[in-house]
Amino acid sequence: MEKKSGSPSKTAGKPILCKAAVCRAAGEPLVIEEIQVDPPKAWEVRIKILCSSLCHSDVTIWQSNTSPLAVFPRILGHESVGEVESVGEHVEEVKEGDRVLPVCIPTCGECRECKFKKKNVCSMFDVKRQNAMPRDGSSRFKDLKGEVVHHFLCLSSFSQYTVVDVSQVVKISTEIPIDKACLLSCGVATGVGSVWKVAEVEEGSTVAVFGLGAVGLAVVEGARLQGASKIIGIDPNPAKFEIGKKFGMTKFVDPTACGEKSVSQVIKELTNGSGADYCFECVGLASLVEEAFASSAEGGRTILIGFDISGTPLKLNSLDLLQGRSVMGSFLGGVKPKLDIPVLVKKYLDKELNLDGFVTHEVSLEEINKAFDYLLQGKSIRCLIWMNK
Amino acid sequence: MEKKSGSPSKTAGKPILCKAAVCRAAGEPLVIEEIQVDPPKAWEVRIKILCSSLCHSDVTIWQSNTSPLAVFPRILGHESVGEVESVGEHVEEVKEGDRVLPVCIPTCGECRECKFKKKNVCSMFDVKRQNAMPRDGSSRFKDLKGEVVHHFLCLSSFSQYTVVDVSQVVKISTEIPIDKACLLSCGVATGVGSVWKVAEVEEGSTVAVFGLGAVGLAVVEGARLQGASKIIGIDPNPAKFEIGKKFGMTKFVDPTACGEKSVSQVIKELTNGSGADYCFECVGLASLVEEAFASSAEGGRTILIGFDISGTPLKLNSLDLLQGRSVMGSFLGGVKPKLDIPVLVKKYLDKELNLDGFVTHEVSLEEINKAFDYLLQGKSIRCLIWMNK
Repeated sequence: MEKKSGSPSKTAGKPILCKAAVCRAAGEPLVIEEIQVDPPKAWEVRIKILCSSLCHSDVTIWQSNTSPLAVFPRILGHESVGEVESVGEHVEEVKEGDRVLPVCIPTCGECRECKFKKKNVCSMFDVKRQNAMPRDGSSRFKDLKGEVVHHFLCLSSFSQYTVVDVSQVVKISTEIPIDKACLLSCGVATGVGSVWKVAEVEEGSTVAVFGLGAVGLAVVEGARLQGASKIIGIDPNPAKFEIGKKFGMTKFVDPTACGEKSVSQVIKELTNGSGADYCFECVGLASLVEEAFASSAEGGRTILIGFDISGTPLKLNSLDLLQGRSVMGSFLGGVKPKLDIPVLVKKYLDKELNLDGFVTHEVSLEEINKAFDYLLQGKSIRCLIWMNK
Repeated sequence: MEKKSGSPSKTAGKPILCKAAVCRAAGEPLVIEEIQVDPPKAWEVRIKILCSSLCHSDVTIWQSNTSPLAVFPRILGHESVGEVESVGEHVEEVKEGDRVLPVCIPTCGECRECKFKKKNVCSMFDVKRQNAMPRDGSSRFKDLKGEVVHHFLCLSSFSQYTVVDVSQVVKISTEIPIDKACLLSCGVATGVGSVWKVAEVEEGSTVAVFGLGAVGLAVVEGARLQGASKIIGIDPNPAKFEIGKKFGMTKFVDPTACGEKSVSQVIKELTNGSGADYCFECVGLASLVEEAFASSAEGGRTILIGFDISGTPLKLNSLDLLQGRSVMGSFLGGVKPKLDIPVLVKKYLDKELNLDGFVTHEVSLEEINKAFDYLLQGKSIRCLIWMNK
């Protein structure tokens, strides 16, 4: 039941003690601890996280000890849905009780990037290079010894409560179920957005999707929505054949079963010799981007989605590019969160966008390390973490 | 004075004897010879070329002896304007006396590529891999010894008469002067098109243009038309500073005068540290594409226009791509000739598109080798070749 506007929550303005999954060292199991979450400062929103899900980038970042941002203890988690507990000064966009998605890209609405149609990364705050709140660079988290606990992407959703800058909060309808909404805060928005906003896939196009994890399956779903005529999924796990078909995949290629042919040869054969109009790399391997590019038709687009932390150089033939091929990077699928996520929610409510089939596992906060195991073992597509169960 | 429709030219249906500049060996001066031009077959148009201009791709192809298409004797030339002399069976789109631009991309209007909004290379004929007419693979040219003379790009405009498939003919208004129209058949369409159709430059964007030849200057002009806020030209020839300014360039960088800084560092300094939103490589060097990419902002696009026949591999950092950067190839600037060139003609007639300043030299057909010298010596931007003077 929503509280009346203007009736402050009992906890507003006070620190909250709650549970969080704290990462105390790279690659080690997260520790469920009681932490203190400070009240939101000006332009900030304190959010009760209802449900988080584990995205592969969390795992990549969790494993890494080399980045300048690998500071400990910290709270990971960036795909989630929550409810506003209280807001800081100047926050008018949301109020207590609102259902919100905390997202990894801010929107200030004022900078030149926010004003361009094709750019989606706001230049007001560089949240990717932050381990604290973006405006004042301090943390809202402490452990019970009083030690500062660091933020991640200015989101840190593996906590029952978190504080997020209002620029990273998207208000959504409460009509969409919590477990479906959660997917739209990162992975599914990235996959569908890459098709819709970055590649701008046209009706009747042929599409190849390299890697059928949650993002790859969301690309398949996005391609179906855009009216692609052929959607080829590529994954070494043959179990993905049946899963992909549910999202609209029309052909499946197991790269380990191509014999002497390269994947790009097989894709050319499946597309009348020309290659796919749009190729999506959803794994994060430079060699696979090169294979995707080799699979693309003249005038075709190869879209990088997978996150390769090592930055391996890509080698591309410039004549192939000159024949009208493009290689396009993107962040959060080119989605402008405050503008485009509500559109995706509406598409779900209108029964156009299918969000069934992504969630394969559900755990409680106490069991969060199981979510990591499921993903690393290739068992899960998305594992939900219910934060208050 | 236009002939009445239905009144056939005196030469219709007969071979025509005329002069052409024949390339008899790679890199050797063209030879002005009398040749025989056969009448157009079905779907073909015989065109009296009024004026050709020399594009750098002609020079690249002229110098090359290694391509499978380097067959001799042949007639080069692909940027031109002409008048329809006669048409073959089934041709209804143009008639005798029509002013036309022969162009290097066909439009069949029926294939899947023609139907996509973002693709511009028709898949009915692969004219890039042809040295004859596209439909029947035979030549319409003979020398006076009866030896076959080969076509180039199915255009061969260095002849007083040529035969072109109707799919490669764009009818234009006679209001635009001949010398201006000629530019729109390749170079200027490529430059302006790359800004308009490929990069889709937004108002207020920052643009960097590497190489200020005719295509680079057309990119500057296109960027001005799209409302770019900053247009930085990069060229080692300091004389290009004054020339570029006439097209709307706002800053000039001479790469030989950057001291210890790289060009990309200088461009970042000129764009508040972020890099240019759109970078255009108009030279055709893989190393320069890499410098252009390094000069691009997050979410920025690097567009390859320069033609590097060697296909040197490009090396790109995948993390830089993942931050939303793209590298986009294109052919004829993404322009769909039959649809977009008439739009460019209208923009010229409406005094929006500036076509002054491109033509720096004019020669007669007899003097065609001078046009090659001017371009190779860096003296000319565009040299017109008047075919009947």
